[in-house]
Amino acid sequence: MAAEGRAGEAYGEAVVYRSDGPSAAARQGAVACLIRSVGGADYRLPHAGQTNYANDAPKIPAGAVTAEDADLIVDLVRQGPVRMKLVLTPQQLADVESYNVIGDIKGSEHPEQVVVVSGHLDSWDLGTGAIDDGAGVAVSMEAANLIEKLHLKPKRTIRVIAWMNEENGSRGSKQYAKDHGREDHFAAMETDGGAGHPLGINIKGKPELKKILAPVAAVLQDSGAGILNLVEHCGADIEPLEKAGVPAFSPIQDSRFYFNYHHTAADTLDKIVPKELAENSAVVAVAAYALANMEQPLPR
Amino acid sequence: MAAEGRAGEAYGEAVVYRSDGPSAAARQGAVACLIRSVGGADYRLPHAGQTNYANDAPKIPAGAVTAEDADLIVDLVRQGPVRMKLVLTPQQLADVESYNVIGDIKGSEHPEQVVVVSGHLDSWDLGTGAIDDGAGVAVSMEAANLIEKLHLKPKRTIRVIAWMNEENGSRGSKQYAKDHGREDHFAAMETDGGAGHPLGINIKGKPELKKILAPVAAVLQDSGAGILNLVEHCGADIEPLEKAGVPAFSPIQDSRFYFNYHHTAADTLDKIVPKELAENSAVVAVAAYALANMEQPLPR
Repeated sequence: MAAEGRAGEAYGEAVVYRSDGPSAAARQGAVACLIRSVGGADYRLPHAGQTNYANDAPKIPAGAVTAEDADLIVDLVRQGPVRMKLVLTPQQLADVESYNVIGDIKGSEHPEQVVVVSGHLDSWDLGTGAIDDGAGVAVSMEAANLIEKLHLKPKRTIRVIAWMNEENGSRGSKQYAKDHGREDHFAAMETDGGAGHPLGINIKGKPELKKILAPVAAVLQDSGAGILNLVEHCGADIEPLEKAGVPAFSPIQDSRFYFNYHHTAADTLDKIVPKELAENSAVVAVAAYALANMEQPLPR
Repeated sequence: MAAEGRAGEAYGEAVVYRSDGPSAAARQGAVACLIRSVGGADYRLPHAGQTNYANDAPKIPAGAVTAEDADLIVDLVRQGPVRMKLVLTPQQLADVESYNVIGDIKGSEHPEQVVVVSGHLDSWDLGTGAIDDGAGVAVSMEAANLIEKLHLKPKRTIRVIAWMNEENGSRGSKQYAKDHGREDHFAAMETDGGAGHPLGINIKGKPELKKILAPVAAVLQDSGAGILNLVEHCGADIEPLEKAGVPAFSPIQDSRFYFNYHHTAADTLDKIVPKELAENSAVVAVAAYALANMEQPLPR
């Protein structure tokens, strides 16, 4: 599915085994739970991520084995009972204070109306978080930088947000919703799919948005990013805004290789192609500026 | 280079840093030596292999870091002196007795003349050795099996050899040369490049062999394996035979991905595409049978 551009859907189908598998197994009497790594790599690479322990099941130890080792275990189980000894070292440390990082380019006409442009600061612990989501933070900051460099004056405020703690329950964005939820959010963007070549813009909101964004898509078409795609969801950190009815957007990114690296030790800076990172910044800058300068309010 | 089909050449250029780097570093006063993993993977995957300690240099500890970690170290070194603590766990255990495994299909007319068809039994320790060189052993055994199944009667003896200890100094093949070197070896084949789609046959020997093999290539052309390619070397284990002047052959294999997995923890059975493995068996069977039934001796 990933090779055909459906990496997000593939991940969505598989990730429930990781997030909810341990509690489901515990309800069946399991004393521990191992899942096959969710992700596309075939390089003996474990892929981990959030586990949601349900309240109605024992919190049993859980881990992810590589695809290759999952195959091996399946083969062994076919031959008879398999006994495993698990040495799982992760521990839950005490919470520490951390922050969303927020910067505004004040709008010239409607400074109180905010277009959020964002990525998240934290990463899953196995890698260094270059594609998830250093790229999204870099793209968002650079989008604002491009607007400044071009001496553009957005009519509405463009607010760059580097969200804290997306990976472990989106607590940064939930706190933002508490602190800033009553402000007038005109639109929200998030880049959280790596730095693959952008193909267009995902839209979460009224179908009419597609027509409204058509002139933007026409501009982006020259760089191969002219697709407008209605989706159910545009980003974990802008979900509270989405739920409040704020139109949400994200770049459509080439995701064919994203889940080979995402949440693994191989999510390192060398996976970022500078030209493609820059292309994403351009798409987000164009979209953000267009949104900030829309003549009319967006339908909700 | 690998993507363009030059994986073997790329490996050859890079592997000297692993094999001879530690002694070269020791001569410069190094107390330990880390090399960038030789291999194509960008999945934070260490690639190891034989190290040749020279007699004229201290035997310093040596290790391979992943490409990503090599990049990181290079970046840090640019910023100032870097201090590292190495915990290297490998140890050299005592030798134990092991064996080449040899099986003959006796020739009907010249049983004393031998066509060797081979792969090697051992593997480097990080992976399970599916592509290096379980595939070569399987291809060689299956080639003989195909000849039997087809009720073909080779005129010369076809000798399947699963060589022991290629990785650590080719001691199995050296012992074979001692024990069997005086026998009449008509030709020798080795498959030691994985199980990628075969493209033809490598030839180590007199250029006239290309013309002699042309009818074989014509048969193989139908399955896309019609290339005949003169090379300097056809396989580590048949090198003693090559050096004795025995014409040597190996399948030309799609090597684009071979060094992504070779000598890593990811060299596991799932990397073998059964259809391509079978294609290699077919090519080796056709070539071996053709060699065993040549009307004339091969030029040396």
